[in-house]
Amino acid sequence: MIRTETTVRVRYADTDKMGVVYYARYLEWFEVGRTEMLREIGLPYAEIEETGVGLPVIEAHCEYKNSAQYDDQILIVSMLHCLPKMKIHIDYEIYNAARQLLAQGYTVHIFWSLDGRPVRPPKFFLDALRPYFDHERKAYR
Amino acid sequence: MIRTETTVRVRYADTDKMGVVYYARYLEWFEVGRTEMLREIGLPYAEIEETGVGLPVIEAHCEYKNSAQYDDQILIVSMLHCLPKMKIHIDYEIYNAARQLLAQGYTVHIFWSLDGRPVRPPKFFLDALRPYFDHERKAYR
Amino acid sequence: MIRTETTVRVRYADTDKMGVVYYARYLEWFEVGRTEMLREIGLPYAEIEETGVGLPVIEAHCEYKNSAQYDDQILIVSMLHCLPKMKIHIDYEIYNAARQLLAQGYTVHIFWSLDGRPVRPPKFFLDALRPYFDHERKAYR
Amino acid sequence: MIRTETTVRVRYADTDKMGVVYYARYLEWFEVGRTEMLREIGLPYAEIEETGVGLPVIEAHCEYKNSAQYDDQILIVSMLHCLPKMKIHIDYEIYNAARQLLAQGYTVHIFWSLDGRPVRPPKFFLDALRPYFDHERKAYR
Repeated sequence: MIRTETTVRVRYADTDKMGVVYYARYLEWFEVGRTEMLREIGLPYAEIEETGVGLPVIEAHCEYKNSAQYDDQILIVSMLHCLPKMKIHIDYEIYNAARQLLAQGYTVHIFWSLDGRPVRPPKFFLDALRPYFDHERKAYR
Repeated sequence: MIRTETTVRVRYADTDKMGVVYYARYLEWFEVGRTEMLREIGLPYAEIEETGVGLPVIEAHCEYKNSAQYDDQILIVSMLHCLPKMKIHIDYEIYNAARQLLAQGYTVHIFWSLDGRPVRPPKFFLDALRPYFDHERKAYR
Repeated sequence: MIRTETTVRVRYADTDKMGVVYYARYLEWFEVGRTEMLREIGLPYAEIEETGVGLPVIEAHCEYKNSAQYDDQILIVSMLHCLPKMKIHIDYEIYNAARQLLAQGYTVHIFWSLDGRPVRPPKFFLDALRPYFDHERKAYR
Repeated sequence: MIRTETTVRVRYADTDKMGVVYYARYLEWFEVGRTEMLREIGLPYAEIEETGVGLPVIEAHCEYKNSAQYDDQILIVSMLHCLPKMKIHIDYEIYNAARQLLAQGYTVHIFWSLDGRPVRPPKFFLDALRPYFDHERKAYR
């Protein structure tokens, strides 16, 4: 398993007239979370795209538990629970500074050649992920 | 059942560097769709809020099938399949001008007093919806 | 002079916790306004880009007079007062349904080859604009 | 003078189909910059609003010099050059990690009672700013 923590500060731009963060903005935070997760394991998304492969979202889901307030320091927890086969499934949890769960959700991505067709996960991508899952397999044996 | 069609034009602001619409923007289109659905049945959301009741989102889901291109004329189909009890579940389909399905999803909302606690669906709200479902019940008997 | 009117409806997504439209959103409305202006004179921006030329913004300005409210029907007036030489300067006025002026501003654009260097306004572009200004020149002579 | 540096990372959500950051997003960065400037001098904007006073924008200006790229580490420099009288004028410069100037601009704000009328700058606000400018006055005497 890979688990990455990132923080963002709630901007005025993120809020709506109900006084809390607008629901679509959580999907931007999911993006921030997975981007930092990829960076942390040595796969900055910008570099992935430079190889000609993208990771477009094919599914997004979010459940809203508590509202995020203006200027809150938000914690984004991003988790990859298993090695991707054709798709990659990433889970997210969003907390405020008091560690109250605000939202949880996931995104599913495919590997996509930037000239427009689905591809298999590139070898360099799987190679970078494998150590995290090998370790686990050993740990749980 | 209630079914409403609305159109929006894809803005440059909606696109990202992959050249297509950014995934979070679909949730804004869902908002546009349900707002027009409520207006069409005589329940403008602004007026609902004036009665002290809001409809915050507690769950959002979207599956992305094809990408929306810049300047596309987008069709948002919003559907309410059953009378809300404590929650209201709205389905959406997003099409481009060629009637190709781009995405489908749903949002779930609760009724929320603007002073901060869950409430039952207001009577005026159910009264406005009921005719659409009575009709159906008769039609399918 | 070219003058185009377009309308947009204020979305919940556009508002912030002050209860009114967030200031950056007006720049999206300016985009909507100029896009419709170009379309109206037979120059859809998507088609301009297909010729390999873009119109990136090099300057944007906005003065906020009154706030835009949720669900307001907004009128965007876009105006081109003179034929572009190297730059194109577009003025905007934003009104609510009661024709109260909410904001006014402008954007300045250059012509930019999509392979990354400044270019002169393309001939087809000037040809499409010229009739609007010829007419004026005659009218005021 | 008050001068604050803040960094943000360019998100995919910030980019548009030209491959660079959409022009309205710079105004969000200006917001991030001034928010951190106020926090740094002991005036978190959230706390200012709790006293019943807001700082709505009445003017915004931005000049775009170079484009911001996806995943760039952006430096926002926010500067307050003089003590506000009725308005507060804040200047901004936006740089990429290579310290190339991407944009510069300003915002002008008024002091606004949250019940809807213009007010003078509150005493606690001026008291917090004064030391930065007293120092300067002495330094330049």
